[in-house]
Amino acid sequence: MEHVRPDEIEKRSFEIITKELEGCDVLINGNTPVDEKDTSVLGVIKRCIHTTADFDYAASLCFSDSAIEKFKELVKGGATIVTDTNMALSGINKKKLEKYGCRALCFMADENIAGIAKERGSTRASAAMEHAMTINGPVIFVIGNAPTALMTLREHFDKGEYTPAFIIGVPVGFVNVVVAKQLIMETSIPYIVNAGRKGGSNVAAAIVNAMLKEMP
Amino acid sequence: MEHVRPDEIEKRSFEIITKELEGCDVLINGNTPVDEKDTSVLGVIKRCIHTTADFDYAASLCFSDSAIEKFKELVKGGATIVTDTNMALSGINKKKLEKYGCRALCFMADENIAGIAKERGSTRASAAMEHAMTINGPVIFVIGNAPTALMTLREHFDKGEYTPAFIIGVPVGFVNVVVAKQLIMETSIPYIVNAGRKGGSNVAAAIVNAMLKEMP
Repeated sequence: MEHVRPDEIEKRSFEIITKELEGCDVLINGNTPVDEKDTSVLGVIKRCIHTTADFDYAASLCFSDSAIEKFKELVKGGATIVTDTNMALSGINKKKLEKYGCRALCFMADENIAGIAKERGSTRASAAMEHAMTINGPVIFVIGNAPTALMTLREHFDKGEYTPAFIIGVPVGFVNVVVAKQLIMETSIPYIVNAGRKGGSNVAAAIVNAMLKEMP
Repeated sequence: MEHVRPDEIEKRSFEIITKELEGCDVLINGNTPVDEKDTSVLGVIKRCIHTTADFDYAASLCFSDSAIEKFKELVKGGATIVTDTNMALSGINKKKLEKYGCRALCFMADENIAGIAKERGSTRASAAMEHAMTINGPVIFVIGNAPTALMTLREHFDKGEYTPAFIIGVPVGFVNVVVAKQLIMETSIPYIVNAGRKGGSNVAAAIVNAMLKEMP
């Protein structure tokens, strides 16, 4: 048993992650080695590993140009965060968001949304995204579960009907997850995406919290 | 893009998982090959993989004797579920629990608990567990984050002060996580534990939901 003070556990965990990453390829977008000076990108990568104990994230996270900077600007401007699961919503640091006047919302448990999805034969996530598109002002989409959420966002973007301000696209799974993530990375929408099958609500919340942590 | 009806996505995912598991060692407790007929154990393993896209769970989940049966009996008897994160609480199928008169609770956001932890120099998780020990009737502990929660449960069990009815022990992390899980597996308390560093609130909820799914 390692004796670590409660308030030191996170610090010690990050020391272990940092040390073990020395033996790993830490890449951005699957090919560019991360500059050690890019502490923001490293911060996001390390927090995903901290949340999952899975070092695969060191080589699969993808960031659009200046993604972290753009996310922070949006938060400073009071953007709305919309998640595709209540678990992701529950994991996000809402105290920090409130400081910037940001709301975090999830429409997945809304019975009206469920009704609309049933009527259309679409997924609840798809209907929830379409509902989120009616929100005034910029929306940061935080998707940890449903590839159909990403597909719906891309579809409306292609038609010129709606442009998400930012997408965190880390659904996990086996059906259309890999392709749905690619669909987002092909657009001009700022994003953080985890390529491949892995991700989840916990990873989605971790990415948001890693960036919020750097904000005063 | 694979065309799968929304209501078929989960089924298709489990087909893919089942197929890919054919090439993997599926083990219980790290060494016993899982009998194909043991659909309950396979159900828990597959749902953890479904939640994480991480096939490592096929060889790291550990079950005490008749664990799943015991869990179901406790739910049928109206046991209380206590989690160590609001994320795990949020992910658990509460509609199914209500059917059996079970409550699911989390004390981590309780300011009194935070105060007690601060006073004692312990973790909030530890204080939350001690509070849960005052609940009347059997308690199923669902731990997806804090190794100190498991340590506190073991400590009170050793002193003969309290016996948890069941422990789902899947904290994730780098400091004392592996050893805390071992501490639970050494006891006579019924458990499902994921050996090693991996786990998380999402995995904790997935394990609970896999077992609830089999209940009418």
